[in-house]
Amino acid sequence: MPFFNFKIVKKDSNSLARAGIFITPHGAIETPAFLPVATNAALKGLNINKHKSLPIRVFIANTYHLWQRPGDGVIKKIGGLHKFMNWDGPIFTDSGGFQAFSLGCGREQGVGKIGSVFTDENVNCVEKNNVKRENLVKINEKGIKFRSFIDGSWQELTPEKSIKIQENLGADVIFAFDECTSPTHDYKYTKDSLDRTHGWAERCLKAKARNDQALFGIVQGGVWKDLRMKSARFISRLPFDGFGIGGSLGKSKKDMYNILDWVVPLLPENKQRHLLGIGGVEDIFEGISRGVDTFDCASPTKEARHGTLWTKGGKINIRKAIYKNDKKPIEKKCGCFTCLNGFSRAYLRHLLNAGEILGYELAILHNLYFVLNLMKEIRESIINNNFDKLKSSFLKNFKICFAATRSQQCRRVGSWRDD
Amino acid sequence: MPFFNFKIVKKDSNSLARAGIFITPHGAIETPAFLPVATNAALKGLNINKHKSLPIRVFIANTYHLWQRPGDGVIKKIGGLHKFMNWDGPIFTDSGGFQAFSLGCGREQGVGKIGSVFTDENVNCVEKNNVKRENLVKINEKGIKFRSFIDGSWQELTPEKSIKIQENLGADVIFAFDECTSPTHDYKYTKDSLDRTHGWAERCLKAKARNDQALFGIVQGGVWKDLRMKSARFISRLPFDGFGIGGSLGKSKKDMYNILDWVVPLLPENKQRHLLGIGGVEDIFEGISRGVDTFDCASPTKEARHGTLWTKGGKINIRKAIYKNDKKPIEKKCGCFTCLNGFSRAYLRHLLNAGEILGYELAILHNLYFVLNLMKEIRESIINNNFDKLKSSFLKNFKICFAATRSQQCRRVGSWRDD
Repeated sequence: MPFFNFKIVKKDSNSLARAGIFITPHGAIETPAFLPVATNAALKGLNINKHKSLPIRVFIANTYHLWQRPGDGVIKKIGGLHKFMNWDGPIFTDSGGFQAFSLGCGREQGVGKIGSVFTDENVNCVEKNNVKRENLVKINEKGIKFRSFIDGSWQELTPEKSIKIQENLGADVIFAFDECTSPTHDYKYTKDSLDRTHGWAERCLKAKARNDQALFGIVQGGVWKDLRMKSARFISRLPFDGFGIGGSLGKSKKDMYNILDWVVPLLPENKQRHLLGIGGVEDIFEGISRGVDTFDCASPTKEARHGTLWTKGGKINIRKAIYKNDKKPIEKKCGCFTCLNGFSRAYLRHLLNAGEILGYELAILHNLYFVLNLMKEIRESIINNNFDKLKSSFLKNFKICFAATRSQQCRRVGSWRDD
Repeated sequence: MPFFNFKIVKKDSNSLARAGIFITPHGAIETPAFLPVATNAALKGLNINKHKSLPIRVFIANTYHLWQRPGDGVIKKIGGLHKFMNWDGPIFTDSGGFQAFSLGCGREQGVGKIGSVFTDENVNCVEKNNVKRENLVKINEKGIKFRSFIDGSWQELTPEKSIKIQENLGADVIFAFDECTSPTHDYKYTKDSLDRTHGWAERCLKAKARNDQALFGIVQGGVWKDLRMKSARFISRLPFDGFGIGGSLGKSKKDMYNILDWVVPLLPENKQRHLLGIGGVEDIFEGISRGVDTFDCASPTKEARHGTLWTKGGKINIRKAIYKNDKKPIEKKCGCFTCLNGFSRAYLRHLLNAGEILGYELAILHNLYFVLNLMKEIRESIINNNFDKLKSSFLKNFKICFAATRSQQCRRVGSWRDD
């Protein structure tokens, strides 16, 4: 891995948390780090080069979407993602395997990768209301066939093709092609899928031709301890440059934490660990304390567009009538562009209710600053040996708020789905 | 007008063009000037305070829309439009009278204020296809009743109420409440409407209570020379601080230029003249040469959102397939953020096709820079006594382009409708 280097700067004494630094051909990433999601090679509403005040150092773009539009060939011709997006920093791309779930079982059954969205009650509800949507995915040993969102045709991704596309896109870190299973899959299906994903991992390593990209393997195995441990052992023995933890993460946050407890200790200490598609505030703290280095999640940007703003006291829905005449910034002492420049809650509310693009931009600037700044605070706390203290005080504020109002507005910060 | 002052800096020797400076409580506006449209108190996609490179000095916001949402009372409570929008420069608001047309006859008959959109052929076409939409306006001597776009209820604007709302909004320059007539109205209707508008102008002057806002009167009268001249004489004799030229401007650009030729010479030389809702490149040159000082138009932002980008060679539709692999910036030697920072046509095309907000923002940044920079060049040319030369060379490029291709892509730059 001539262009890459991952070094642990400091280990926490009370948990598996660690502060590190990950060198890439396009600069260093201090970990723990949060990767905003740039599905279509653009951060929703943000011109990242313009927002010097926003501490974005790295983000993740979406192989499936860029393959479909504008096509990886177009991006290759322009000179790769960095040139296409006019961004000099590090970039990750996922492999497209998540869409096996999000456009397949997840879409069909209306469930998320983990958590409260998927409960027996919800599933029943989906079935009762008959709102099932078409499964746009077919999976076999060779690869995954997707029904294109551009023209409805069936198109195939294989491990080899995913790597080829990711090499054309040219991100710094790319992921092995996997099948992201669903919480609705049973043990038998998940076990067979895991064998398939392991075979695909080997094919990805074999297919890789560029040496200036790091290739991360992905641990799957659903909610089953034996499968997760088998996968962690199998994938970590392969010559990957880092590791992702993906797939169905159970029915609750507790399931997800169990999975991390099984998997992370089996991964090599000197390589980076990425938790795919997860990035709620509680998830971040609990993931880091279990040894996760990086996260990606669409929630901060997606929720911002819907008016849900993240604050240290919990989430607020800025579109509510109580903010109609509210002159205050979203959050006191917040260092984001929106708060620092005196944009009021009343203005934000108006813009979002009027569907003004500026509203999305100001809201996204706040939410992304919130989560990126949180990562910075967490990293500093690990270095200063007070991660535990930060974790308990930070999460306590959400709990107090939750207990005090029991309303959606102040519910504990968590993120359950990604794009 | 203690807070305001309009000075002519230089007069062109070959036309009525003039370079001026208009002092307002929130700073000076160098004229000729173009006012971007911030309908909902936001420039589509742009955080104007962040774009120091974009020479926006003033814009116009929409009384009707802000009255409806979030309500002028809300904006007053926050401290007025400047505080609400976090903008320290000058602001204009229109009076709501344009919506008498745009939500009334214009909506019902699918016609614009002027020009090619409205031809007998088009009108027939609309009628034939039976795509008439509901007229959401009722007009009588007292004022105009609008069907609210928020809840469908009928709500009334009167001259007094329009002034009250505009005082609550707190722009630097406000307009008298008028009835913007349609090209479909006949002489008799337009004449009666004009008498009404003149009565309303007097009522507006009477209703005005704040002395830190300039009130501009509006000349109406459709395409009839006697009515336009009558209106120019009547309105210019009233103690307005400046003048707008509004309403139906005929069936072609030639009609509009005729109207300007009749009206402008009757307006006092030492007061500012604003051409309402017009801002195509040719319109700007022809308007300025006929003595117009300021323009407002939604076209640069609106067309940008649809992928129509303004260049010195004409308009291009960046969503076309020919730009798929195009590494070039929108326009060589353009000083806008988008072009200067190396964003390619291929990236712009991709973003707009994917519906990414960033695409709208980058496109709007270009179009607005284009028109604002054009105003700057025009002003300099008047001061340097070569306005005529700039006008003919600038418009010639569009003509050549038009003649060469006869395609939509290179059609002459003009703007025919506003929001």
